Amino acid sequence: MFITFLSDFGLQDDFVGTCHGVMKRIAPEAHIIDITHGIPPQHVLQGALVLRDTLPYMPEGVHLAVVDPGVGGHRRALALRTGEGRILVGPDNGLILPAADLLGGVEIVHELANPEYALDTVSRTFHGRDLFAPAAAHLACGVALEELGPPVDPQALVQLDMPEPEIGQSRINATALYVDQFGNVRLNLTRRQLEDADVLPGVTVELELALERYYAVAARTFADAAPGDIILYEDSYRNVAVAIRGGNAAELFGVTPGQEVRIHLRSP
Amino acid sequence: MFITFLSDFGLQDDFVGTCHGVMKRIAPEAHIIDITHGIPPQHVLQGALVLRDTLPYMPEGVHLAVVDPGVGGHRRALALRTGEGRILVGPDNGLILPAADLLGGVEIVHELANPEYALDTVSRTFHGRDLFAPAAAHLACGVALEELGPPVDPQALVQLDMPEPEIGQSRINATALYVDQFGNVRLNLTRRQLEDADVLPGVTVELELALERYYAVAARTFADAAPGDIILYEDSYRNVAVAIRGGNAAELFGVTPGQEVRIHLRSP
Amino acid sequence: MFITFLSDFGLQDDFVGTCHGVMKRIAPEAHIIDITHGIPPQHVLQGALVLRDTLPYMPEGVHLAVVDPGVGGHRRALALRTGEGRILVGPDNGLILPAADLLGGVEIVHELANPEYALDTVSRTFHGRDLFAPAAAHLACGVALEELGPPVDPQALVQLDMPEPEIGQSRINATALYVDQFGNVRLNLTRRQLEDADVLPGVTVELELALERYYAVAARTFADAAPGDIILYEDSYRNVAVAIRGGNAAELFGVTPGQEVRIHLRSP
Repeated sequence: MFITFLSDFGLQDDFVGTCHGVMKRIAPEAHIIDITHGIPPQHVLQGALVLRDTLPYMPEGVHLAVVDPGVGGHRRALALRTGEGRILVGPDNGLILPAADLLGGVEIVHELANPEYALDTVSRTFHGRDLFAPAAAHLACGVALEELGPPVDPQALVQLDMPEPEIGQSRINATALYVDQFGNVRLNLTRRQLEDADVLPGVTVELELALERYYAVAARTFADAAPGDIILYEDSYRNVAVAIRGGNAAELFGVTPGQEVRIHLRSP
Repeated sequence: MFITFLSDFGLQDDFVGTCHGVMKRIAPEAHIIDITHGIPPQHVLQGALVLRDTLPYMPEGVHLAVVDPGVGGHRRALALRTGEGRILVGPDNGLILPAADLLGGVEIVHELANPEYALDTVSRTFHGRDLFAPAAAHLACGVALEELGPPVDPQALVQLDMPEPEIGQSRINATALYVDQFGNVRLNLTRRQLEDADVLPGVTVELELALERYYAVAARTFADAAPGDIILYEDSYRNVAVAIRGGNAAELFGVTPGQEVRIHLRSP
Repeated sequence: MFITFLSDFGLQDDFVGTCHGVMKRIAPEAHIIDITHGIPPQHVLQGALVLRDTLPYMPEGVHLAVVDPGVGGHRRALALRTGEGRILVGPDNGLILPAADLLGGVEIVHELANPEYALDTVSRTFHGRDLFAPAAAHLACGVALEELGPPVDPQALVQLDMPEPEIGQSRINATALYVDQFGNVRLNLTRRQLEDADVLPGVTVELELALERYYAVAARTFADAAPGDIILYEDSYRNVAVAIRGGNAAELFGVTPGQEVRIHLRSP
């Protein structure tokens, strides 16, 4: 049985390794796949987007996700099953819902309330280790979702605000969602939206970020651009992203997730 | 059979991956759990504390730890068995002793001296790969501890100086032991010690770090504090830690492990 | 069956985890060993050197490597078998050739052209996920190399320029190849070359980096030097490296891979 694991724990500390240990004590035969632990600390939206984008590439199983700024407060801990039979485990802060929606929708949800499936002592600050990892491991061993605690109304789950782009005649206001290790900046914009605004491969636009403007060209791939060119391209998860061929766009622009990126369309 | 692995190798280089390869060539069936490789380079004390705090969460097996500033010198290489039957492998610099003490105490120790259980060539600078990882893998395959080399007197092992807090009437002098990925600063202080000094949840103290003073409040959990509040709380390994709700305490204070942290108690 | 995996993807993003997921969907029984994902972005030469240095320590199997600045362009995707029976998968940019040469030489090469062994949709920017990882996983399941696409003439493969040191009477001009997590700087120089120039352990030379000069002493190991000493030593992969005992040489010198390092020999 597979357990996938995504968090904002980073790999500097022992948090991820300790959760692995906890899961392997309960489910020695489970295979754990670390999707990433590099979600920026406490950025629930980025965690939710990465989980949604990557789960289709993962083998079916139990999918554990922990980005949990509300730990120790009143937020609920959840396990749910989707229409496609995937089991997701995480906090009730919206983190696991976009992925669940993509994979068949939320079928049933239960609160993690049964102490039998948590560690003996549950700390106030590390529910990843004490509550979520044990629940994921027990589910991977075949424990029924219903055993973990009382059912929760799927309509009552906390939802995230997903930023939508504003698409006007002369301007698109988009939001930077994610900056990857190469400095490429993912926007909340699809290639179709860009093409509907007549920004086809080869078309030049002006990008406005943090009061500065830059020329950028729509491109199919890096190889279509010259070194140093700023390009708009469809990234591998089908979002439009900004990159510099051979450079680091996020560094040049000083852009961070959540920031507005304006695309000025040029009159034809 | 499980092998857990902790080091200061980081994940930038191939050191960890190469040790995995070495172990898998010898013990293809072993499951390796990486506790962390983010111990600050050559910080034996921090490695020892993290190993001690995490091993209780790990499945039983062989526990490999390498933080080894003395590599290539005269420090011995060790494998030991604890009273609870755990096997620990690492350098004789104190790294593995606090964990061994917690897990039943040191029962027997042997020096890694038998070349049959090392790689053919042992370099002068990478005993993790050439000596410790092969020994751990052979032990995981069932080789007896006694096969690895001559016995060592447990009393003759190198011990670490563990910093102890000074607890006075108006002041506690503590030491920062560890800074985690969220910037939370673990102190060498337990909740009980703090409570014995009448610092109960809700009580305000003054923290003094690097000649600056800050107000901080004792709290049960992050959720009890307002954003921006500096709190003293019991972390998930039962040490008192300093954090800022929604911020990075280590960065604000400029604190690094080993630094003194004074807690000024306010007159009642 | 083992699959080893080296890339420049870093561990911040989901790229590595997603490739693991893709491989595990195809080959659930395969064991994946991450050699490193910390190759500096798009540094094909460094990736090639690390792959060559580490594969001898890895169990035999399929060896996947992705450092791929030419993704989306015309570079071919390859799988090859070496004289020793190792299977290497990666882009045709020189990355996998030094390792192949070391492990028996290139026996046969095939282009990854059969869509049956790629994901259904191959993006323009993430061939690691869509093309290379699936091919590696199918090979690990026993698919024959010949199934993956047409044969390629081994003589037609793209080769890397490997920098060679210039060794003169009074000076050696070397190149920094790699900086590790401890700040040690690996040079394109062997101990034999250094000794042929009469730089034996104990001999002092002058290092020139970025117009600054520093005294350094040839040493067998760190333990032979005093704290703060700059040393030249044979590292664990049998290259000469520059280090500071207890310090970070790369930071002090401001040296990065590719930079020239001159070693001035002192008249006897």
